[in-house]
Amino acid sequence: MRSMTSSLASEAPPTSTDVEAAAKRIVGLAVETPLLESPVLNGRVGGRIFIKPESLQRTGSFKFRGAYNKLKRLQEQGVGAVVAYSSGNHAQGVAAAAQILRMSAVIVVPADAPAIKLANTRSYGAEVVVYDRRTEDREAIAEGLATRHNAAIVRPYDDPWIIAGQGTVGRELARQTLAAGGELDAALLPAGGGGLISGSALALRSVWPELPVYACEPVGFEDTARSLAAHRRVSNEAGAVSICDGLLAPTPGRLTFALNDRMLAGGFAVTDDEVLAAMAFAFRSLKLVVEPSGAVCLAVVLSGKFDCRGRCVGLVISGGNVDARLFARCLGQEL
Amino acid sequence: MRSMTSSLASEAPPTSTDVEAAAKRIVGLAVETPLLESPVLNGRVGGRIFIKPESLQRTGSFKFRGAYNKLKRLQEQGVGAVVAYSSGNHAQGVAAAAQILRMSAVIVVPADAPAIKLANTRSYGAEVVVYDRRTEDREAIAEGLATRHNAAIVRPYDDPWIIAGQGTVGRELARQTLAAGGELDAALLPAGGGGLISGSALALRSVWPELPVYACEPVGFEDTARSLAAHRRVSNEAGAVSICDGLLAPTPGRLTFALNDRMLAGGFAVTDDEVLAAMAFAFRSLKLVVEPSGAVCLAVVLSGKFDCRGRCVGLVISGGNVDARLFARCLGQEL
Repeated sequence: MRSMTSSLASEAPPTSTDVEAAAKRIVGLAVETPLLESPVLNGRVGGRIFIKPESLQRTGSFKFRGAYNKLKRLQEQGVGAVVAYSSGNHAQGVAAAAQILRMSAVIVVPADAPAIKLANTRSYGAEVVVYDRRTEDREAIAEGLATRHNAAIVRPYDDPWIIAGQGTVGRELARQTLAAGGELDAALLPAGGGGLISGSALALRSVWPELPVYACEPVGFEDTARSLAAHRRVSNEAGAVSICDGLLAPTPGRLTFALNDRMLAGGFAVTDDEVLAAMAFAFRSLKLVVEPSGAVCLAVVLSGKFDCRGRCVGLVISGGNVDARLFARCLGQEL
Repeated sequence: MRSMTSSLASEAPPTSTDVEAAAKRIVGLAVETPLLESPVLNGRVGGRIFIKPESLQRTGSFKFRGAYNKLKRLQEQGVGAVVAYSSGNHAQGVAAAAQILRMSAVIVVPADAPAIKLANTRSYGAEVVVYDRRTEDREAIAEGLATRHNAAIVRPYDDPWIIAGQGTVGRELARQTLAAGGELDAALLPAGGGGLISGSALALRSVWPELPVYACEPVGFEDTARSLAAHRRVSNEAGAVSICDGLLAPTPGRLTFALNDRMLAGGFAVTDDEVLAAMAFAFRSLKLVVEPSGAVCLAVVLSGKFDCRGRCVGLVISGGNVDARLFARCLGQEL
């Protein structure tokens, strides 16, 4: 991690050492989420599943980890204001980190983001600028705001400090699995831009160098799986839709894919119905509130697309910020 | 704990040593539920709240702990069949424990119990006998079944082995709080028949001998609070209703009240609306699925009935077995 600012295109990808450093920076501020095991889930899939529920993280998703790691670094460099663009969870992570660090934050959020994500972002004291996902360019809006506010842009995934921060999820998953007397045979993580999975793979594979790590994505947005197969970054077809609002990035990040291409074993994609069924399972049997994007790995194992029989599998539930109306829909109820 | 059978009226209440023994018996079978802390909840109540989410326990409530401890003991005594009566969570705990121990189980459950509790109880292989809560006597039905099946009756709370098993919740709460660098100033637990709170108070007060432990109950069912004030067991007025289906016991247990009268500092009662609001808070901010009975302590702190400002408070969420329809109702409140 050689560069000193957030906007250099020549940044090198982080290493597991950067994940270790991030873990030290976020301690006491990020929640060390527990490692959960469910007899019902284990019985259902015929294996041993270690669940890392980042829905229980500060701000309701893993995004606080990377955001705090990045903003703390920016503050050390003298930066006092940040601008971010996000579908909602990165927005909350940046807003909460800025509030703790007493930095000002402007967040560019699509108008169709879940209401809970918009409300929470504002509740952390950030200024929210809404844009139209179909007609406006969020990066251009963010650039304009950053110039006007003399602020640094905090990208959602293609940044070594963000990647290292999100990687602390994988680091905790590895350490907690070992503490529980387990050894992982595989790990499943959601992939949007690829920050969480690339950083976590660094940490996981520093413990188990040959560990197969798989990307879980919504059908129509399996750009990471397709890019891994092609060994180059490919984009999603236009026009796809998914309820997984946090996993709609059009293409893998440059830095994240450089890491993922080297480390990941492949990917799985799940439909909206499989995601809704996984959310309902989480309600009924895990007693966890999981948002659509957070449920993709669970959907992959419950649908049988990844065979867990006889294996010990680490699985990340990445967030729980879901509107009541959609949650009721997954339960088969009308509000 | 001197008696050897489950039906002796002369049983002595358990001690913290019995809780320690129960912890050894359930290890590896009961889930060691995590200790959770939420920055949002802490900020809201102005204190530090350590949440013990027994909703994440095997069978979705703490009841598995006591049930397994009791059934294991019965099996050691040569008993092969059990009968239990329960509003639903004890039913599931006994059914799951019997399944693990390969004992047969018949459970007497009211017809108006939540559908999820009935379905789960059957899913663990138990035979379910349904009765009418208003016109039939569940204890008489259970006695008849026990005679017919040559089975032991597993009471829901007034049994030293059950109390000791439920007390492992308090034991873990104390150990995990200490491990997190905390010291409790108070603890809040739900009180139905009083098994969970009496066993847990034994364990908590073996660590902090002067710890104030408070009973949380639904309005109309505050028999424990009223009995504590009167220093004798008093019954609830007939005709009260509550959505807290797990906390409707008519009067404190004999053994449980002997312990609670000595150890508890008092009680708080909450309305259905306060319980629904706490369930909605758990959905929105904790990302936990909590059933009405499981939410009473959270309702006590969120309503301000117990003042948490500047204090470190242990709080038990006792279960998460709630039907989708009722859960949607609590979500509808926040729209």
